[in-house]
Amino acid sequence: MVACYALVKGAWTLVTLSTAIKDWMKTAMKKATIMQTQHLRLFIALVFCAVTGIAAAQPKSTGGPLSSWNDGETKSAITEFVERVTDKNSSDFVPVAERIAVFDNDGTLWTEQPMYIQLAFALDRVKALAGKHPEWQEKQPFKAALEGDLKALAAGGEKGALELVMATHAGMTSEAFSAIASEWLKTARHPTFKRPYTECVYQPMLELLAYLRANGFKTIIISGGGVEFMRVFAEDVYGIPPEQTFGSSIKMKYEVRDGKPVLIRLPEIDLIEDKAGKPVGIQRYIGRRPIMAFGNSDGDFEMLEYVTAGKGPRLGVLVHHTDAEREVAYDRESAMGRLAKSLDEAKARGWVVVDMKEDWRRIFPN
Amino acid sequence: MVACYALVKGAWTLVTLSTAIKDWMKTAMKKATIMQTQHLRLFIALVFCAVTGIAAAQPKSTGGPLSSWNDGETKSAITEFVERVTDKNSSDFVPVAERIAVFDNDGTLWTEQPMYIQLAFALDRVKALAGKHPEWQEKQPFKAALEGDLKALAAGGEKGALELVMATHAGMTSEAFSAIASEWLKTARHPTFKRPYTECVYQPMLELLAYLRANGFKTIIISGGGVEFMRVFAEDVYGIPPEQTFGSSIKMKYEVRDGKPVLIRLPEIDLIEDKAGKPVGIQRYIGRRPIMAFGNSDGDFEMLEYVTAGKGPRLGVLVHHTDAEREVAYDRESAMGRLAKSLDEAKARGWVVVDMKEDWRRIFPN
Repeated sequence: MVACYALVKGAWTLVTLSTAIKDWMKTAMKKATIMQTQHLRLFIALVFCAVTGIAAAQPKSTGGPLSSWNDGETKSAITEFVERVTDKNSSDFVPVAERIAVFDNDGTLWTEQPMYIQLAFALDRVKALAGKHPEWQEKQPFKAALEGDLKALAAGGEKGALELVMATHAGMTSEAFSAIASEWLKTARHPTFKRPYTECVYQPMLELLAYLRANGFKTIIISGGGVEFMRVFAEDVYGIPPEQTFGSSIKMKYEVRDGKPVLIRLPEIDLIEDKAGKPVGIQRYIGRRPIMAFGNSDGDFEMLEYVTAGKGPRLGVLVHHTDAEREVAYDRESAMGRLAKSLDEAKARGWVVVDMKEDWRRIFPN
Repeated sequence: MVACYALVKGAWTLVTLSTAIKDWMKTAMKKATIMQTQHLRLFIALVFCAVTGIAAAQPKSTGGPLSSWNDGETKSAITEFVERVTDKNSSDFVPVAERIAVFDNDGTLWTEQPMYIQLAFALDRVKALAGKHPEWQEKQPFKAALEGDLKALAAGGEKGALELVMATHAGMTSEAFSAIASEWLKTARHPTFKRPYTECVYQPMLELLAYLRANGFKTIIISGGGVEFMRVFAEDVYGIPPEQTFGSSIKMKYEVRDGKPVLIRLPEIDLIEDKAGKPVGIQRYIGRRPIMAFGNSDGDFEMLEYVTAGKGPRLGVLVHHTDAEREVAYDRESAMGRLAKSLDEAKARGWVVVDMKEDWRRIFPN
């Protein structure tokens, strides 16, 4: 069960929660219409401001490096923490070498609705590969994937999900997989936001990443998503290089094929970097406890718990998806990125909760 | 077989090559006597120079960042490569983000004779823990370890070696293990060089690490040694932070014990980062192919092969232990750090071979 879940987080969700997905997709389509209306409203407001010189009656941002964050408690909690750990005269000063901030990816840095982006990739791969596998037309779980029959996919259970993932993510070299994922990201579009997935990233988080780096932080991804999928775009989009991007992984084997050394992706789970797998990933890949952690779901609970339990100044931050108009509002009941336990315990643990609707002036880049 | 070998590389070697170890230790003791004579010679030479103002008749170094490297083809091959990839006007220019250099540890950055330092640690740990394990006095492989009976240890085979390693390296938290290793490194002394192990590092390599970093390189350890053992000293000694130090690993489990989140080291192999495991480690931890690789043994063959087979400028470097007077001369027949295949193929593959005796003005830091 666990194995399927985190390799491509979505594959697991797909298997167990197909009905929920359908509902989400319906809601998301509705949101798209709402968004168009919202764009019109924003446009009218901007014209009004330009003519009258009066600022729109919305929360304000003082600009600067976090200009997409509205002023308020959330933004202050982050900037005050950073100021404190970078101030040499502060008792909370942290040397540059120890300034490490870890980030979940799905739902924290980019959207995970109506489904994990990597799940959309996996389903598209099945379609793309179907020509070479005529047997898939009648063979589950591929038949279900090709027909978009989520109910049948769910019926295939763990075994089916794993078959699906391994057929689309293993059996080729690392280089070949990267090329496939890269090509897909260039052409695929988000179904409701109508833009490339790499533009479905959160502008306030991009600013935050840059702000932290400008303050001597190393920004590192610790995600449940597949590591080699994320490495395809993380450097260009987030400014986070491959050696600082970590996620769930499958095993690899080194071979020399026709005189060329290659790494073959094997159909076998290596690390599931979700829930309790996140602190394990932190120790494996980083080897020291970060001082800041950013997540958005219960899959990030252990990461925030581990990071904020360390000695000295620590900050845990949860992104709460509250904006039904500009993105999608979801938490406790969501098939993807369920947020319940983390939210319930946030206050007692001193974790900052970002209210996307209130705290973010903008969601996506222009 | 493989499992034992690389977790603590020495444990495996100990099991299969006990006779060879004994011979090495005898030779090393002999070397110690030779070294004392050599120190006297050096002292006399220095006094002579000071009085007469005439430089000693040994190979010269022009000083600068690599002042412990004698001028010559080896040094030039390295510096010319670095100049080429950092020169914006060169067709071989490499952006900073891609300037990654990987280093083996044992025998490349610090000594591995008369035995891997981590093996010495494991044997000392058995002695330290023996009081809590009265049964070890009669139980193999512990009895053999306590008595220094290498023949009996070898007779215990793979199972015995694994028992030894797991008893000394697993079953505690990561933090506890680091504290134990750190404490040991503070007090243990090399048997023949008579100095802390952390001073049995190669001065020319320390200079090389600093030189590469000054030229925009990220220096990363990819070693067969245990990752959490190396992380204890790599930052202080090499300037390489934990998040750039990778080696063989055992599995870990996240737990909250008495309200405190911890990572438990399990008695189960995770990755054996030696031979073909090195390119796997590179992809797992770095996610892109380095442009420089430094090793010293056949365990580094695949790493150098993988790195130097990439497109664009690449440099593979082997440290050849040729200095019987200042360190230990060994290659093809050595129990630890065997160097045969890599040496045989170095020329055809364009790998640079460092002749320690000729190319290094100094071996250890003062």
